[in-house]
Amino acid sequence: MDLIQKSLLQQVAGLHDVPEGAYNIRVNGQLDSRNTTANIDIVTKEDKPGIDIIIKPGTKNESVHIPVLLSKSGLQDMVYNDFYIGEDCDVTIVAGCGIHNCGVDTSKHDGIHTFYIGKNAKVKYIERHYGEGDGNGENIMNPETIVHLEEGASMEMETTQIKGIDSTVRKTGGDLKDNASLEIREKIMTHGKQYAKTDFVVDLNGKGCSANVVSRSVARDQSRQEFFSTINGNNECKGHSECDAIIMDSASVSASPKLTANNIDANLIHEAAIGKIAGEQLVKLMTLGLTEAEAEEQIINGFLK
Amino acid sequence: MDLIQKSLLQQVAGLHDVPEGAYNIRVNGQLDSRNTTANIDIVTKEDKPGIDIIIKPGTKNESVHIPVLLSKSGLQDMVYNDFYIGEDCDVTIVAGCGIHNCGVDTSKHDGIHTFYIGKNAKVKYIERHYGEGDGNGENIMNPETIVHLEEGASMEMETTQIKGIDSTVRKTGGDLKDNASLEIREKIMTHGKQYAKTDFVVDLNGKGCSANVVSRSVARDQSRQEFFSTINGNNECKGHSECDAIIMDSASVSASPKLTANNIDANLIHEAAIGKIAGEQLVKLMTLGLTEAEAEEQIINGFLK
Repeated sequence: MDLIQKSLLQQVAGLHDVPEGAYNIRVNGQLDSRNTTANIDIVTKEDKPGIDIIIKPGTKNESVHIPVLLSKSGLQDMVYNDFYIGEDCDVTIVAGCGIHNCGVDTSKHDGIHTFYIGKNAKVKYIERHYGEGDGNGENIMNPETIVHLEEGASMEMETTQIKGIDSTVRKTGGDLKDNASLEIREKIMTHGKQYAKTDFVVDLNGKGCSANVVSRSVARDQSRQEFFSTINGNNECKGHSECDAIIMDSASVSASPKLTANNIDANLIHEAAIGKIAGEQLVKLMTLGLTEAEAEEQIINGFLK
Repeated sequence: MDLIQKSLLQQVAGLHDVPEGAYNIRVNGQLDSRNTTANIDIVTKEDKPGIDIIIKPGTKNESVHIPVLLSKSGLQDMVYNDFYIGEDCDVTIVAGCGIHNCGVDTSKHDGIHTFYIGKNAKVKYIERHYGEGDGNGENIMNPETIVHLEEGASMEMETTQIKGIDSTVRKTGGDLKDNASLEIREKIMTHGKQYAKTDFVVDLNGKGCSANVVSRSVARDQSRQEFFSTINGNNECKGHSECDAIIMDSASVSASPKLTANNIDANLIHEAAIGKIAGEQLVKLMTLGLTEAEAEEQIINGFLK
């Protein structure tokens, strides 16, 4: 990896170098390096681009990193990654894509991640999307995540897109069996003329299952954001969706959560709020000696933390 | 009017007999009676079924009643009513439709009400929908309300559908100029195999304008309800939407509010909750001596009050 790629790696995976444990690093559409462990196998797919990540039942406190880095302008990459997580696992998976585009062509990465999470397994899934470059070429990412949760399984998903992605459509789908739980926390910031669309669909099929979708976003400049979330309560279940957005400059934000209760014991709630940074908050920080821009920055960082 | 029609009139307009002030009573697709006043004129449309209600600028503390009654089975009625409300008015308008259907045919009433509300005028608009009969013929009502609010104008709309409507699609649209305000309170109860769809679209175009949409509904038996609301904040404005639903038996309820902020000074919030009657509430009332059915009834009445 060159310096640019190492810097991207740090942005998307928080890593200075190759990680501990299992990993698969994809650079410019090719396998760069891979490590497997006694409990975690990674196998290249034969019918299409992508990998299978197979984690043995009962695997605890292990992690898998699968970052994707694009440093050539104009590269179009598409991968299918499937995760088979055995019963009673407790693992952390870190995915993400970093694009460095110093050219005039569009760089694009589409990834479809499908999770099959076994009974009583716990998964923490962290996903970061980051772009950089001189702004002449477009950076596009369309991540799709599908999560199948067996009885008692749980997943905590943290998905972040902070900078440099010109256009993104982010789809996340989940279906839950008895006592399964899904927690999704999304953070998005858009600037310039960027466009971001988020679409969550969660089917609460099992008895006692629950989902919590929390999205926080900041839209600056002329950027546009659309947020959709659909929670279907088909059994005794709990669903909660929350979308808070800060709007700045000439940006626009739209939030469309949808709740459907098909069972008398479904308990569904959503909340959303869109507004600008409160004037009092700014004034307070400015009386402490910050400039207006610094005060805004501090409030936004706190909001997205 | 016969006894059935008088009873319908009471259900939809709270009237025992013809009202005070201006009124237009439509029975079985025909004009039954009409009264105008010095300030309020009612004119039959010549190009299509319906009436124009014209209220002089500055008219205060006057009311107009325009109930529609259908007591013949199988009647299909469609009216266009336009309301021209002058500047600085302060008036109450009571509309509504009652269907008594003792037959096997479908009775249907569609009404499109358009309001042109002048500067600084205040309108209170009350609308009730009610059906009854032996259950062999279907009762269908599709009310559509469009509200244009000039600078500083305000409308408070109360719309209620408590019983006996088998199928309804209720559309309400509003556009607001500077400092205008729109408050909508909706109450719906469905039972049996009824279907109710509600669709609000409000454009907050003026500086300092505001909208508040509050929907409370109860879905019993196998009934289905869908709630849509769209609030577009296109200026410095405030928008709030709230949808609370109680689900019972095998009913299903879906809530899809949508907020769009196209201006940095738009302040938009929505909330929704769908769930069944809390067990503790029922138990509390039952320890006070009520049966379960009585306790449910009391909770529902309180919720829809």
